[in-house]
Amino acid sequence: MTRMPQGLPLLGEVASEAEAVDKAPLVLAGVLLSLVVVYIASKLGGELSRLLNLPPVLGELVGGVVVGTSALNLLVFPESGATVADSTLMPVLQWIGGGLSLEAIAPIFDTQSEVISVLAELGVIILLFEIGLESDLRELTKVGYQAAVVAVIGVVAPFAAGTAGLIAIFHTPTIPAIFAGAALTATSIGITSKVLSELGHLKSREGQIIVGAAVIDDVLGIIVLAVVASLAKTGEVDVTNVVYLIISASAFLLGAIFLGKFFNKAFLTIADKLQTRGQLIIPALVFAFLMAFLANAIHLEAILGAFAAGLVLDETDKRKELDQQVIPIADILVPVFFVSVGAKADLSVLNPAVPANREGLVIAAFLLIVAIIGKVITGWGVFGQPGINRLAIGIGMVPRGEVGLVFAGIGSASGVLDKPLEAAIIIMVIFTTFLAPPLLRVAFRDQEAEDAVPATDAVSET
Amino acid sequence: MTRMPQGLPLLGEVASEAEAVDKAPLVLAGVLLSLVVVYIASKLGGELSRLLNLPPVLGELVGGVVVGTSALNLLVFPESGATVADSTLMPVLQWIGGGLSLEAIAPIFDTQSEVISVLAELGVIILLFEIGLESDLRELTKVGYQAAVVAVIGVVAPFAAGTAGLIAIFHTPTIPAIFAGAALTATSIGITSKVLSELGHLKSREGQIIVGAAVIDDVLGIIVLAVVASLAKTGEVDVTNVVYLIISASAFLLGAIFLGKFFNKAFLTIADKLQTRGQLIIPALVFAFLMAFLANAIHLEAILGAFAAGLVLDETDKRKELDQQVIPIADILVPVFFVSVGAKADLSVLNPAVPANREGLVIAAFLLIVAIIGKVITGWGVFGQPGINRLAIGIGMVPRGEVGLVFAGIGSASGVLDKPLEAAIIIMVIFTTFLAPPLLRVAFRDQEAEDAVPATDAVSET
Repeated sequence: MTRMPQGLPLLGEVASEAEAVDKAPLVLAGVLLSLVVVYIASKLGGELSRLLNLPPVLGELVGGVVVGTSALNLLVFPESGATVADSTLMPVLQWIGGGLSLEAIAPIFDTQSEVISVLAELGVIILLFEIGLESDLRELTKVGYQAAVVAVIGVVAPFAAGTAGLIAIFHTPTIPAIFAGAALTATSIGITSKVLSELGHLKSREGQIIVGAAVIDDVLGIIVLAVVASLAKTGEVDVTNVVYLIISASAFLLGAIFLGKFFNKAFLTIADKLQTRGQLIIPALVFAFLMAFLANAIHLEAILGAFAAGLVLDETDKRKELDQQVIPIADILVPVFFVSVGAKADLSVLNPAVPANREGLVIAAFLLIVAIIGKVITGWGVFGQPGINRLAIGIGMVPRGEVGLVFAGIGSASGVLDKPLEAAIIIMVIFTTFLAPPLLRVAFRDQEAEDAVPATDAVSET
Repeated sequence: MTRMPQGLPLLGEVASEAEAVDKAPLVLAGVLLSLVVVYIASKLGGELSRLLNLPPVLGELVGGVVVGTSALNLLVFPESGATVADSTLMPVLQWIGGGLSLEAIAPIFDTQSEVISVLAELGVIILLFEIGLESDLRELTKVGYQAAVVAVIGVVAPFAAGTAGLIAIFHTPTIPAIFAGAALTATSIGITSKVLSELGHLKSREGQIIVGAAVIDDVLGIIVLAVVASLAKTGEVDVTNVVYLIISASAFLLGAIFLGKFFNKAFLTIADKLQTRGQLIIPALVFAFLMAFLANAIHLEAILGAFAAGLVLDETDKRKELDQQVIPIADILVPVFFVSVGAKADLSVLNPAVPANREGLVIAAFLLIVAIIGKVITGWGVFGQPGINRLAIGIGMVPRGEVGLVFAGIGSASGVLDKPLEAAIIIMVIFTTFLAPPLLRVAFRDQEAEDAVPATDAVSET
C-alpha cells in the first residue's frame, strides 16, 4: 500500500498486483493498440490513395511511414534498431501499468513488436496464398520461359551495372560494391502482386509474367544473398551452399506443382468429410502453412511455399468458396505487412542537412537510375508475345520493398557497408517501392487507351 | 567452413549464416508449425466429438490436451511452467537451424510461445465479438435482472460452500481456503457461449440468460480475484481497489451500451464512405480492438470490451455482411484459444500413483461436487420466466475453463496454495470444463423432447 504514483493511485495499486502475476495483459494491450494504429494508418492511407487515383497499397505504405520510425514512432521495431525509448506507444502502456519504468516496459515492447512482426509475416504469407489462388497454374506455366528470361535479366543487368558503376565512378571497394549490386536485384513480389491485383491486371498475360518472374526473382535473390553473405563473411563464395540452394529451390517449386494434383485430391476428400466450422479454410491453411514452413525449413522464403499452395488449390472446384473465405483473413492480416514495411523505412536518410547523407544521396541517385533502368529493360526480354505491354512488365519488376530492406539490414549487420552506401541502398529501396505503383497504373492505363483503338491483339482477360 | 554437424552439413552451413542475421525465420517456422498442430488437433478433436454427438468445442479441448503438456508436448507454454526442453516441437527447429543448442533455441521457444498465446487471446476476443454480434442487446437487457441473480448466486454459493467446507472438513487454513473458494466462482464465458452457439441455443431465452450471467460473472470474478490477491499478498483487503474495479466495470459496460447508438452511427458512416478492401471488417475490428484495449486498460478483461463492441454493432443493418466476414476470421483464430486451454491443462495431477496427488484427489472430489451443485442451483434463481429450462441454465454456468486456470496459476505463483490444494483446483477446473458441454447438450435435448409434446410456452427462437 506504499507505492502511490501521482495522478493514478488506483491504477498503480491494481498494476502492482497484476505485475507479480504476468506481463501477458500488457503485451496484449500493446498488440491491440498497435493493430488499431496499423488499421487506421492503412485505411486512411489506402482511401486517400484511392481518391488520388493511385493504388491503395501505396497509401498503406505511406500510412506506415507516417506512424513509423520516420514520423510518429507509434510503430517501431527493435530489429530495425529502435529501442523502447523510441516508441511513442509505450508511454501509454507504462501509464496503464501504473507508472512502469522504461526498463520494466522493455521486455513488453520487445514481445509486442515480435508479435506484430510475426503477424506481418503471416500477412504476406496469406497475401501470397491469395495471389496463388488467383493465379492460374496453366497460364503461369505457359509464360514460364518468358518469366524466367525477365527474372534473369532483372538480376544480371542491375547487378552488373550497379557493381561496375560503383567501382568505376565512386571507387567503392569490391565487396561493398558487390553487396550494393546484389541489393539491386531484388523484386518485391508482395507489393507488385498487390498492385496488379488492385489494378485488375493480375490475370492478364503481363500480370502472370510479372508474378512468375517475381517468384523466380525471389529464388534468385535468395541465392544471390547467400553468395554475397558468404563473400562478406569469409571473402570467398561457398559453392556447396549455392548448389544446395539452387537444387532445393527448384525441387521445391517443381515438386509442389507436380504433386499438386495429389494434394488437390487429398484436400478435397478432407474438406468434403469435415462437418464442423472451418471445414474448408482450416485444411487450406494447414496446407498453406505447412508449405510455407517447408519452404522456410529449406531456407527458401516462406511466401514461396504459400504461393505454391495457393497455385495448387486454385485447381479445385471449391476455389470460389475458398477465395471468399480467404478475403476477410487477408483483409485483416495483409495491412499489418504493408504498414510495417512503411514503418520500417527510415526517411531521415533523405535529409540533405545531415552531411553524411549528402554523399549517400549522390550514390542513391546513381543506384536509383540503375535500379529503374535495370528492371524496366526486362520487359523487352519477353519473346514470342507480340503486342505485350513491355513497359508494364518492366515497371512491375521495379519495387524492391521488403526484400530490398532485408539486403540493407544484412549489409548493415555484417559491417560491410559504410554509412553513405547503406543510406543510398535504403533510399533506392524506398523510391523504387513508392514509384512503382503509380507508374504501373500509368503503364497499364496507356495500354487501355491503346486497346480502345481497334488493335491486332488485345490482352487476354480470362 | 569448420562447423559440420553430422548428417546435415549443408543445412548447417546455411544456418550459420542465417543465424548471424536474425532469429525471425525460426520464430516464424515455430509459429507456422504450432498453428498446423493447433489446426490438426482442433479438427480431429472437433470432428470426432461431432461423430460422438458431442459439442465440437469439447473435442478441440481434448485435442489440445493430446498435443499439450499432458501427452505429446507439441504445444507447451513457459507461463504454465514448461521449458524449452519440454517441447517436442523444438528439436525440429533445432534441426532446421542446423543443430542449434537448447540454449540457442530457448529465446525462439519463448517468442513463438508468446506469439501463440497472443493469437489465442485474439481468438477469444474475436469469439466474444462474434458472440456479441449474435446476441441481441434488447433480449439481453430484458433478461438482465435474471442474469444478475444467476451470476450472484453462482459466485456466492460455491464460494461460501467451498471455503467453509475446506475449513470444516479438511482443516485448510483460512487464506488458502478462501483462495480455493474464489476459484470456484469462475465461469468460462468462452466455452459456455461456444457450446451454446454450437447447440443453436445462443439466442434462446436460456442462452441469453447464461451469456448475460457469464458476462456479469466475469466482472464479479475480476473483483473476487482482486480481493483474494490482495488478501494473499498483504493479509488484508484493499478496499479502494475493489471499489475502483466495481465502478470502472459498471461504467464501462453501461457506458458502452448507452453510447452504442452513437458508435453505431459513426461506424456506419465510416463503413459507407470507405471504398478499398476491408471497408467493413477493418472499422469493425478497430472498434472491437479499441474496446478490448480499453477494458484491458482499466484492468477488466479484454474479452468484455470485445463482447460489448459486438453487442453494439449488432444493431446496425450491415450486421449480416459483417457476420459473414467475421466467420472465417473466427474459424482460424478461435481454435488457437481452445486448443491452448486444453494444452495447458496438466492431467498428470490425476495420477493416483503419485502419493501427493491422492490427498489432492480427495479434495478435488469435494471441490468438484461444490463446483457443480453451486452453479447448477443458479438456474432456480431465475424468476418470472415460467417454463424456462432451469437445469440448462445451471449447467451452462458450470465450466471454469481458462478463468479457473488463471486462478490456479495466480495461487501457484503467490505461494498461497500447497501442492494438493493446487492440484485439486486444477482437477476441478478440468472436470467442470469437460463435463459441461455434453451435459448441456443433454439438458437441452430433454427440453426439445418436452417441447415436442404440446407445451404452454416454447423457447423463443427469434
